[in-house]
Amino acid sequence: MRIAVDAFGGDHAPEAIVKGCVQAVSECNAELILVGKEQILAALLEHEDVPTGKIHIHHAEEVIETSESPVDSIRRKKDSSLVVGLELVKNGEADAVVSAGNTGAYLAGAFRTLGRVKGVKRPALTTVLPTVGNPGVILDVGANADCRPLHLVQFAQMGAIYAEHVLGIQHPRVGLLNIGAEEAKGNALTKETHQLLKSAPVNFIGNIEPRDVPYGLADVIVCDGFTGNVVIKLIEGTASALFSMMKDVFYKSTLTKLAAGILKPGLKTVKSRMDYSEYGGAPLLGIDGVVFKAHGSSDAKAIKNAVKTTALYVEAGVNEKIKAAISAYSTSDEDEDR
Amino acid sequence: MRIAVDAFGGDHAPEAIVKGCVQAVSECNAELILVGKEQILAALLEHEDVPTGKIHIHHAEEVIETSESPVDSIRRKKDSSLVVGLELVKNGEADAVVSAGNTGAYLAGAFRTLGRVKGVKRPALTTVLPTVGNPGVILDVGANADCRPLHLVQFAQMGAIYAEHVLGIQHPRVGLLNIGAEEAKGNALTKETHQLLKSAPVNFIGNIEPRDVPYGLADVIVCDGFTGNVVIKLIEGTASALFSMMKDVFYKSTLTKLAAGILKPGLKTVKSRMDYSEYGGAPLLGIDGVVFKAHGSSDAKAIKNAVKTTALYVEAGVNEKIKAAISAYSTSDEDEDR
Repeated sequence: MRIAVDAFGGDHAPEAIVKGCVQAVSECNAELILVGKEQILAALLEHEDVPTGKIHIHHAEEVIETSESPVDSIRRKKDSSLVVGLELVKNGEADAVVSAGNTGAYLAGAFRTLGRVKGVKRPALTTVLPTVGNPGVILDVGANADCRPLHLVQFAQMGAIYAEHVLGIQHPRVGLLNIGAEEAKGNALTKETHQLLKSAPVNFIGNIEPRDVPYGLADVIVCDGFTGNVVIKLIEGTASALFSMMKDVFYKSTLTKLAAGILKPGLKTVKSRMDYSEYGGAPLLGIDGVVFKAHGSSDAKAIKNAVKTTALYVEAGVNEKIKAAISAYSTSDEDEDR
Repeated sequence: MRIAVDAFGGDHAPEAIVKGCVQAVSECNAELILVGKEQILAALLEHEDVPTGKIHIHHAEEVIETSESPVDSIRRKKDSSLVVGLELVKNGEADAVVSAGNTGAYLAGAFRTLGRVKGVKRPALTTVLPTVGNPGVILDVGANADCRPLHLVQFAQMGAIYAEHVLGIQHPRVGLLNIGAEEAKGNALTKETHQLLKSAPVNFIGNIEPRDVPYGLADVIVCDGFTGNVVIKLIEGTASALFSMMKDVFYKSTLTKLAAGILKPGLKTVKSRMDYSEYGGAPLLGIDGVVFKAHGSSDAKAIKNAVKTTALYVEAGVNEKIKAAISAYSTSDEDEDR
């Protein structure tokens, strides 16, 4: 298996990306292709201890910055590490691609270069959701700001396959994010989606209220991409705000500093458990090719985790399973190719 | 000024409601009308030290439970404390009403009994948003699950008036909750709303990303009621999940218990700062009458805060200011009375 990695995407590229890849090759059964400026990557690899033939370099001259316009940048920068990584998948030179770069450009590029799995209306960005219990997944978290009910039904199918075959959750419980537990609650989208999910071939357990999201009551949480993006970023912001307020409490006096020192290791664990970037990348489910997004602020460990999860995904043949599931359960949609 | 209080709404009714009212009368310049079963209320008041003529009782025989269907219950239970409280406002016997009862029933009842301020398309439930900095407000948080851009513009106007005249924030900064800082980001609703807000008579500062919501970058955050409800409940759930994980850290050993004991008072402050029920009730802005919702789990202190905020609202003449602002800035809407 060969996985292409965009070595120039993300806040800590290329150093953290290279380091993460070096760590990953010793922990998973994949060859990696670092995509980006050859000279820089070769120099970085010189200092690392890499088994022969496990990490290759594929030159790409340009870099798409996080601040650039997505559609514009992929059109203009055909020789960027982000676009070239996707091309390697398209040409069959890589089985998957990982990038921590510009999310919008990566989504648009994946869509344009690789297209959709047959039958999938809307590919969905899918991320692991940190919870008090076992982590689940949530989708869509930003690929589709406006969705229709049928899109959410497909998200449920794809998310369940991912949860089962990559996260190892048997018979994953699928919940619909909604404001209220009763099926008549919600907006037009969630009300109609609830009805459709009742007869869909997934283990639908009903609505999940926002208050319960961090408690892991469902293994797969389904919502439109606007709401999903709000959810993951608000959890991140709330946790960070709370920890910053607690810092003030900790630094109040010598005594509180001492007490905080004792609790620090435990609290660090809590903090990292709430950090979804710890969990190794977000696949773009429904794209005809394996495309993983790592968090923009990924450090070497996050990149390593993303590469390892990507390898699991390829091994499990998730995309083939999605194709089969979607074609086995086709629902009518008045506006199919919108 | 006379404020009616639904004495039988909420998880801790009627005891906490009565206690909260007793505390409130000594701190604000209002007479209170406790609405509910007379005998029970009279017995509860007997143990309290109340200045003569400050707390009255208005009998109502029935109680609407939190679990009851909103529309059904207000239709069937005309002599419930919740409905009678609203009627007192309608008949001019009270200047405002406060309830911690069934939210759906209260909203439906307010709409039906009192109607909208002239020109307001959709009344919005508005709550104080706890942040690291100064608290702001967010609306709508649940009265309207589906909204159109014009509704959000009116929410911005109403929210700004409330922030200025009740919370005392000069020239309040209005932000649009959106997934991305750039104006082209978002779903169909937020993209169009952004354009409308640019020319609306409010201090519009642009999009607020979910990650920044707990940091108080805006004084008024505007969104549809589905998203707003997700936001307040997810902040609540995330904070509660974090504190429950931290409890495990605190109880790990004798040493950690000792350390936690030292930090406890400070951490309690953090917890209560993140709790929006601390901030005294959520007005239903745009209803032709002053209608405040207290959190269902309100204790006496929360009720006291809600009553005090309600008194401020009445004194400031917020509804008159809303009426004037809405009539001064009328925007066209193709589907006015939907």
